[in-house]
Amino acid sequence: MNEFNLDQYLPHLSIDCVIFGYEGKELKILISKSKLGDNFWALPGGYIKKSEGIDKAASRILYERTALKNIYLEQFRVFGHETRIVESPYNEALRLGYLQYDATIFTEEVISWLTDRFVCIGYYALVDIQKVTTQNREFDELLEWRNIQQIPNLMHDHNSIVEEALTALRLNFDAKLIGFNLLPEVFTMREIQELYETVYERNFANNNFQKKMLDLKVLERLEKKFTGAQNKAPYLYRFVKK
Amino acid sequence: MNEFNLDQYLPHLSIDCVIFGYEGKELKILISKSKLGDNFWALPGGYIKKSEGIDKAASRILYERTALKNIYLEQFRVFGHETRIVESPYNEALRLGYLQYDATIFTEEVISWLTDRFVCIGYYALVDIQKVTTQNREFDELLEWRNIQQIPNLMHDHNSIVEEALTALRLNFDAKLIGFNLLPEVFTMREIQELYETVYERNFANNNFQKKMLDLKVLERLEKKFTGAQNKAPYLYRFVKK
Repeated sequence: MNEFNLDQYLPHLSIDCVIFGYEGKELKILISKSKLGDNFWALPGGYIKKSEGIDKAASRILYERTALKNIYLEQFRVFGHETRIVESPYNEALRLGYLQYDATIFTEEVISWLTDRFVCIGYYALVDIQKVTTQNREFDELLEWRNIQQIPNLMHDHNSIVEEALTALRLNFDAKLIGFNLLPEVFTMREIQELYETVYERNFANNNFQKKMLDLKVLERLEKKFTGAQNKAPYLYRFVKK
Repeated sequence: MNEFNLDQYLPHLSIDCVIFGYEGKELKILISKSKLGDNFWALPGGYIKKSEGIDKAASRILYERTALKNIYLEQFRVFGHETRIVESPYNEALRLGYLQYDATIFTEEVISWLTDRFVCIGYYALVDIQKVTTQNREFDELLEWRNIQQIPNLMHDHNSIVEEALTALRLNFDAKLIGFNLLPEVFTMREIQELYETVYERNFANNNFQKKMLDLKVLERLEKKFTGAQNKAPYLYRFVKK
């Protein structure tokens, strides 16, 4: 914690990340149980070094939590209401002395920093969950993947940030063909369709979906996937960047 | 200028506005000739007061330049590269003493503020040009409407900010039905179509366009517009918010 030098960061500016992963036909995000308080959950976030661009800061924050580099990430909105953080009930509880915390981590200086006004740049990231090794940072008690439908109450305005990220994800999913970042290298047509159905929370007609995907001309067809009966083996595909 | 108290603003955070207007079948933006230097043009911008939300700050900055309240505006992207402003050639020229300026306006403190690192939140606004009364601020020598195709070299990364704003405008124009903010209260079908053709830089088939617009069910048909020959008078329409 001695390394947590606040002077290195731009004041009043933070980054929060909505890290999307996909596993077992579920769309999930990575959330952090905070060391500040008993059952406080938040988005993984951080600050921008004075010598660091905002995209680089977001990449670093993601790397620190997931051990992954070259993650697909995109800024989607700034959250900058004048009462943001400052009037959060969590800070009220803190001021009133309701919270138990480790004062060697949350020094007066740190508490004063954390409870100041922050204009937050929201980024969303898409990762292949299998490749992620979660790593706790200063304020994380633990990091956990949670189904997007089962997100607990998050600190501050983080639930709204998740909602906005989901809206932006759906808006860009098709237009920018970013969904493949959530899949492993190779996948079946059925698996892409399940991903789309999960993200958009609706079903697609198989034939139409397959035709639409193939018409995009971004899929390379590989060998068949032999799992059981040979006559039912589906083709495997790989995403080819245009 | 004595009122330009820098202490009231959040450091390292700025707002730049791409203010779109539409006039004589041209899409235009409002740009500012800076008092700093001979022929330096920039986007109208400003800073965020410590007690002010970012959307309110953007509204205030727009009001200061246009005398309009309740402008349609939307944040579209953050520009936050680590070298932004700091390594701009304008600042280089300033450091080397190549610029002539009024030292009562551009005091050492102001110059030091202006040339510091800024993470810039880009907003675009849509206004009815006829309603705008342009008003110069501290650093504006004059404000001018310019055709989007004829934007001069702007300071720093402002030309890229215009490009990104235009991309966002086209993306949202149809989806969010925001184009009507660029028109007067009442308009003919021909006038809407010309607006769309100007924004998208292409022609639309008259019948299809008219059908599409009417199918949106956001237009109220008013009396005919009598300008000349009665048999050719087109209907007037008004936009009705859903």
